[in-house]
Amino acid sequence: MTTMDNPVRNGVDTATLFATLDAVKGNTDIAKFQFRATNRWVSGTHSQSTIHGFYGAMQEMTHRQPWTFDADHPAVLVGADNGPTPVEFVLHALAACLTAGLANIAAARGVNLTEVESTVEGDIDLLGILGLADEVRNGYEQIKVSFKLRGDDPDKLRSLVDQSRRRSAVFDIVTNGVPVA
Amino acid sequence: MTTMDNPVRNGVDTATLFATLDAVKGNTDIAKFQFRATNRWVSGTHSQSTIHGFYGAMQEMTHRQPWTFDADHPAVLVGADNGPTPVEFVLHALAACLTAGLANIAAARGVNLTEVESTVEGDIDLLGILGLADEVRNGYEQIKVSFKLRGDDPDKLRSLVDQSRRRSAVFDIVTNGVPVA
Repeated sequence: MTTMDNPVRNGVDTATLFATLDAVKGNTDIAKFQFRATNRWVSGTHSQSTIHGFYGAMQEMTHRQPWTFDADHPAVLVGADNGPTPVEFVLHALAACLTAGLANIAAARGVNLTEVESTVEGDIDLLGILGLADEVRNGYEQIKVSFKLRGDDPDKLRSLVDQSRRRSAVFDIVTNGVPVA
Repeated sequence: MTTMDNPVRNGVDTATLFATLDAVKGNTDIAKFQFRATNRWVSGTHSQSTIHGFYGAMQEMTHRQPWTFDADHPAVLVGADNGPTPVEFVLHALAACLTAGLANIAAARGVNLTEVESTVEGDIDLLGILGLADEVRNGYEQIKVSFKLRGDDPDKLRSLVDQSRRRSAVFDIVTNGVPVA
């Protein structure tokens, strides 16, 4: 059966996923990646980033197309609302990373998913970035993530969320911090 | 002169910027914001986030339109490359936040900008998220940001970058971590 030769679950090609894991075990240099974004200021708080090239699997690579993303502040924060705020993109990144991990882990464990939805909320007190209160941090004070999953039995689904959090790049970046030079 | 009544520098409406600061000083509750993203899994590592509503200035607000963003893994990471990876959106967020801050700070200081470009690079060893090495973290090991500015004299421009880093929400989130529930 084709499904035995190339089993796809939740849209994840598990055969290729396991082959990739084996390849990396054979040569750990394959796992060293560098991702990049370039950004160009437009006007005021409006800027645009392009994401295209990256390094990985021991070579320079590109996504199949360059993507551009606008960021801005809304009018209430003295911007022109040409795109989401930078801090909202962090919430998108966190939700997307946990969700991709969930789908991969479910596929690897043979768990079927039919629906995954999440909401991410970040509380921020702008007294920090406005320089009006030294004791208030610039970034989010807290972030809350809620998941709603449908698929195989609830206990299996719940453990997917836990494991996804344990293996999420963005969750680690956001909770543990990264040295920035 | 109109430019005295409503001075705009670098595309930043400085009169409104200072009025906003005064308003916040008068009632610090205005500065309490909550940003949100909702995410829906599509297939495999592909998901889509929507960013629209937020809370701020003591009321529920919306951006002037809902924005949607796809995230995925590239083929080399067993995805279908329907969008950037979640970790690349973090780099975009960081560049956009520092750039918006730069423009605001320059305007407040009366410094003219003509060009701002930045590149953000994040190094990540995927042995972490693949679960193949306990000592390797899941997220970026380091992030490097480079800025190229044109405008008023170089010393003033350099100090803008420093101040922008000191007042950046995303820089704080990425370097210092945030509690995630």
